[in-house]
Order: sequence, then C-alpha cells, then structure tokens
Amino acid sequence: MPAKNLGVWEIERHFKVSKTCPDTQARLGGLVTNHGVVTTPAFLPVASRGTVRTLIPEELKDIGVTIILGNTYHLYLRPGIDALAKLGGLHRYMAWDGPILTDSGGYQIFSLARLCKITDDGVTFRSHIDGSEHDLTPELVIELQQVLGADIIMTLDECPAIGASMAKVCEAVERTSQWAERCQKHHQSSTQLLFGIIQGGIYPELRQQSARAITSLDFPGYAIGGLSLGEPKELTWAMVGGTMPFLPVDKPRYLMGVGSPEDIIEGVSRGIDLFDSALPTRIARNGALFTMRERINIRKAIYRTKEQPVDADCDCYTCRTFSAAYLNHLFKCEELLAYRLATIHNLRFITRLTQQIENAIQRGTFPSFKNDFLNQYKVTDEEVRIAQKQKWLNSPRHRNNTAL
Amino acid sequence: MPAKNLGVWEIERHFKVSKTCPDTQARLGGLVTNHGVVTTPAFLPVASRGTVRTLIPEELKDIGVTIILGNTYHLYLRPGIDALAKLGGLHRYMAWDGPILTDSGGYQIFSLARLCKITDDGVTFRSHIDGSEHDLTPELVIELQQVLGADIIMTLDECPAIGASMAKVCEAVERTSQWAERCQKHHQSSTQLLFGIIQGGIYPELRQQSARAITSLDFPGYAIGGLSLGEPKELTWAMVGGTMPFLPVDKPRYLMGVGSPEDIIEGVSRGIDLFDSALPTRIARNGALFTMRERINIRKAIYRTKEQPVDADCDCYTCRTFSAAYLNHLFKCEELLAYRLATIHNLRFITRLTQQIENAIQRGTFPSFKNDFLNQYKVTDEEVRIAQKQKWLNSPRHRNNTAL
Repeated sequence: MPAKNLGVWEIERHFKVSKTCPDTQARLGGLVTNHGVVTTPAFLPVASRGTVRTLIPEELKDIGVTIILGNTYHLYLRPGIDALAKLGGLHRYMAWDGPILTDSGGYQIFSLARLCKITDDGVTFRSHIDGSEHDLTPELVIELQQVLGADIIMTLDECPAIGASMAKVCEAVERTSQWAERCQKHHQSSTQLLFGIIQGGIYPELRQQSARAITSLDFPGYAIGGLSLGEPKELTWAMVGGTMPFLPVDKPRYLMGVGSPEDIIEGVSRGIDLFDSALPTRIARNGALFTMRERINIRKAIYRTKEQPVDADCDCYTCRTFSAAYLNHLFKCEELLAYRLATIHNLRFITRLTQQIENAIQRGTFPSFKNDFLNQYKVTDEEVRIAQKQKWLNSPRHRNNTAL
Repeated sequence: MPAKNLGVWEIERHFKVSKTCPDTQARLGGLVTNHGVVTTPAFLPVASRGTVRTLIPEELKDIGVTIILGNTYHLYLRPGIDALAKLGGLHRYMAWDGPILTDSGGYQIFSLARLCKITDDGVTFRSHIDGSEHDLTPELVIELQQVLGADIIMTLDECPAIGASMAKVCEAVERTSQWAERCQKHHQSSTQLLFGIIQGGIYPELRQQSARAITSLDFPGYAIGGLSLGEPKELTWAMVGGTMPFLPVDKPRYLMGVGSPEDIIEGVSRGIDLFDSALPTRIARNGALFTMRERINIRKAIYRTKEQPVDADCDCYTCRTFSAAYLNHLFKCEELLAYRLATIHNLRFITRLTQQIENAIQRGTFPSFKNDFLNQYKVTDEEVRIAQKQKWLNSPRHRNNTAL
C-alpha cells in the first residue's frame, strides 16, 4: 500500500480537487488514504459488521467499489475490540485491502442501542444485542477506531432524532463540538484521517453554528450527519445547502446516510464528495433493483418468464449471467443466492452511476447528465418514501439489526 | 460440449470402469454425459430449486464440482415447467454448463408433498407450497425431465417411509418396477441417460426383488433409493450390500441421499460410483464444518479469536482467505456471508475427499486410505445422528423446504 505516497501527501494534503463543474458545485477529487487513493465522488457500501452483506472482497473489487464503511459500534459489541486487536484489525479480519472508513458509533448509539445516560463526559448505553451496559467517551472511540485500523475515522457525535426540539439539538451541537475537540486531541495516528461531523438537526441556525465550530478545528475532512433520518427531502437539501458554504473547498465533504441514485446526483451537484448508505444493499435484499428508469420489483409475476436480464444496459455479473426470470424464481423461493445477486446488481448500479458522474464532470456535461437522469428516472413518491423510511426505522429488523 | 464424443460412446457405452481396487469393491470410472465427462466416484451437490444454495456456477467449478442434482418436483412447482421450457431448460436457467442429474420427484412427493392418492396409473398430491393439486404419471415425469434437459434423469419411484410395513413396501417395489418400465418406454431422448431406481425399504428380500426387476430392464445406470431416511447405518449398509451383487459391474451405481464423509468412503468401498446429499451444504449453514478429524461447530466461543483458518489443511477459498474467528463472527451475527463461506468449505471438503479417494484407488492404496480416514475421523454418535435426522425430517424447515 502506498505508505510512501502518503508521506508526501501528508506534508501537502490528503485531498485534491482536480476539476470543478462551472455550472454546479460538482467536483472531481482524489482522496489519499493509507490503503490507496479514492477518486471522488465515491459511494461507500455499508459493512457495519465487517461484511458487505452476502459479498466477498473480490466481488466488491469487480463491482468497482473503492472504499467501504465499517462501524465502531457494531464491531465493538461483536466480535469485540480485543478480538479485532488480536486478529490485526479490520482490513485483515475481513480480507479487504482497500480503504475503509469507520463511523464512530454516535448515530448507532442514538438509534440502535438503548440509551441510558448522556453527559458531557460521554455516553452510557445498553447493547441492542444482549442488553449489556457500556460507557463510551470521545477518547475511547478514537482508541477503538485505532485498533480497527480504518483509513478514515470519525469523531464521536450526538445525533438526536429528527423530531427533537431546538433546545435539545442545540445541546447536541455544543456537545458534538466539545467531543470533536477531544477526539482531535486524542488522535495520534498519522495513517488515519480523522473527519469531523456536523450536526444541527433541521434547524438552519444550528447547522451553521455546528459547521462553524467543527470547521474551526481544521479536520482533514467533514461529514454532514443527522440527515436522511426520515425528514422530507426538501429539508435535507435545505440543510445541506445551508452547510456547504461553511465547508472549505479543499477538504472532502461526506454526506452520511445518503445513497439513492437521485440523491447522489443531487448531493454531487451541491459539492458532496462522499456518500454512504445501506439503502442500495437493503432494498436489493427486498427485491428492489435499480434500472436507469426506476426501481423494479423483481418479485412481480411479469418477470417469471422474462428471458432478458434485469437491466439490459447493466454490465454487472448478475445481468451478464442470469435472466430476470431466474432472479424472480430465487426471490420467490427465498433462496439465499437471490440476495447476493441483487446486491451485486444494485451496488454495481450505484458504482457505475458515480463513474458516469465522474465522466460527465470530466467532460463538462454534468448539468445535462443530471437533468437527463432525473428526467428519465422515476423517483419513489415522497410520501411513500417517508412512510417506508419510518416503517424501516421502527421495524424489528432495523432495531435488532438482523441480517436480512 | 462433447456432443461428438457422446456419439461415439453411444454406440459403445456411457460408462467405463478404468480401475478396480483388488481388496474392496471400490473403482474408478468415467461417465460420459451430454455436458461432459464425470469421473467417478463423484458427489453431486444438491440444487433442488436450480441453485446450490448461496453459490454461483463459477464457485462450484473452483471447488471442483463436476455434476449437480436438480429436482423435478421442486422445479415443476416453481418456477413451473412452462417457464423452464421458455427459458431453454435448466442449464441455461441456472447458468451451469456442466452435467446435471435430475431426480424424478418420487422421493419428494412422498416426503414433502401432501399425498392425496396413489394408484398404478400415477400419483395425485398437493403442493407443499400452496396446497394446489397435481397429478403425475411416469410418462409425465419423463416429459418434465426432458424439458429440464438434465444429462441424467431418473425413473418415477414410490418411496415409502422407513417405518412402512413389508406389505406396503412390497406394493411400492412392484409399482416402482411397473413405473420404471413405463418411463423407459416413454423415454426418447438420445442425449439424456435414464437411470432406474431400486427400492425395497429395509427388507432384504424386497431389495433383491427390486434389484432383479429393475436391472432386467437394462438401464444405463442404477440408483439405490429409499435409504438414509433415518434408519440405523448398519441397516443402510446391509441393504446396500445385499443389492450390489445384482447390479452389473459395467453400469454406474448411484446411492441416493448419502453424503457424509464416512458414508462416502463406506459406499465407495462397496462399489458405489455416485452420491448426492444435502447434508454437507445443510450442516454448513448450521455452522458445522468438516475437518479431517471431525465436524467442528464454528459458533463455539473458542473460535472467536482463532487466527488460523477453519482447517489448516484445506485449500478452499474460505480457508485460504479468512480466519476461523471471522467465520465465528459471521455466524454469531447470522450474516448471510457465513452460509456461503461455510458451504464453500464443506463442498470443497467433500469434493477433495472424492479426489483423495480417486488417487488412493489409482495408487492401489484405497484400503489403507479408508482405514486411516475412519480411524482419525470422529463420526457423529449413532443415536445422536438418528435423533438429529428424525428431528430434521420432522422440522418445519424441511417440511416447508425453506432456504436456510
């Protein structure tokens, strides 16, 4: 891995914008990590528990995935940090030699765990797996991520639910700033980039306040957290739009939890470089497959005898090898191969989309690419989408973090 | 595929014994099919519904699998024969270009379906999926298998449960013979080999009677059916031993439903050429992994931090790539990748075992290989095994044929 290169970049910087769209905020960049360079815009598939569900590392590479997301909360609880220390960190554990970003666990503690107590010092919570009690501090979260060995690590943040009052979110913003500072002070590793997270819920003033406070600490990258939690999309983009002016142009910008095709395009056009979301892989396991026109439901009877692949324009293994009919059959039978083939397809779709975006920015045609895509792609109805998201957030499958 | 070669073999024969062990009945052979030659002894992984659960065809090839087993009953019910006809047969449907054997559905009708009526003409049953009523005759079963396009197809047999009375099994033996004759008469394809199935339960006289009747029809291969259904192993081998003298030496012999390492070795030493069983893949999904010493339970806490692979001697993708600790983690989390990696390991173990058997017969060392293996391999306790088998046969997972 390019440790030498990193040495050079360390003196200069880890991120370089190579091209900017003249009509939008879209841009191309290169993010240098200890396990290789990531060209941006990039999408990070979610591997919370050290596996992009159903896939092996070789498949991720074939798909074109360049960087993945692990989760400190999940891995801390299972297999435990002692196990990961003994086994040489997350890269070796899951046999992925490319870049990894680990989330700090902030969001998961507030969404999955049973929260016991939050103080300025840190957070006490009960595991969603066995109810055991745990304390985390900003310092400990940095140490845990050091053991995991990810290339990009995140500060511990407080992430209130979308319905939280302004007073509560204000408190969270202030605590998130204090924690970010403590994380930064405790961060020693020269091979790990520590990104700051901006909070502020759906309150523009608090988003601004958080952006000012976090950027004043001068991190090598910034994430916008606490969005895509069930709020209307207009609000999401209003919050992103209000935050972007405060983010330095020479640092990577990461919009957490966003990953539908239309949202990636919208995010890129606002200057976002990195995205992560479980959506493409989760809906794949439900039989919802991306095409350039819409998400199709492969379980539908019309696919039972369809000889063509799911998407005739797709170059993924699934579409190159199998008919839509075969996918329909596997889903009807609830065969495990169904989830794998669908995951390959959706991840390839999203990865290919980021490649198409890259080409369009390179050629100066991003605005028309964006328009063409959004004109032909049938977006899920907003009311249906919010209802689905709420249903998902409240579902036992999400609450218990089950594998399907 | 070697259609030309098949032409030559058709005139001569489809099976050739190339070497016989001087001390046991073990032998090496070559079985020529329309999709390639299968060297025997061979093990057929089960792909009842057109998928070896969790795996893609390329992985099966990497593992060394040469022939797989599909099931007429499952595929007839779902996706339906019309769909498979439209899609060009099972090979194309599942993208497997090697040899396929399809079972006739006899066993499944008597074990999975709700049996409505059985007459000399055929069988009426209700689907285990939706309760719909269906009629199958020996002739129809041949036609269905012709559409599926397998390289080896099976006669329709009546397969009573192990507890059935001698009178009931006698009736089944007679009906199985009549049906075999009708299957043979109706069988036209020159590219499909039709194998006869011998029944007779646990009654030596009936096994003999069935063997004499079925072999008198002169099929290109013979299967021993109706065993490994929960009877003590002594009885299984007594029935196999009593049947073998009636089977012509120049035809392949297939022991249905047998697939544990020790049973494959025992079967080979009695002259069996082909085996199939869901056991290696099913127990893999339970976390039971083969090693040369025993089945280990990868869920056990001792594996949480084990850096070595599951089996240091194994050359499978799983053992080459991941620690036992990672497998333990995936199983604890019920991650879908667990089932895939475990399936790869167990199938490679069994495939490698058949290759080791082949080498031993080739070198004239099969008896010592057999002794060494059986001496070091800890076989599941017989009482525990029978209890497990009964539990499995009665489980909703089996009855409903669910994917896990």
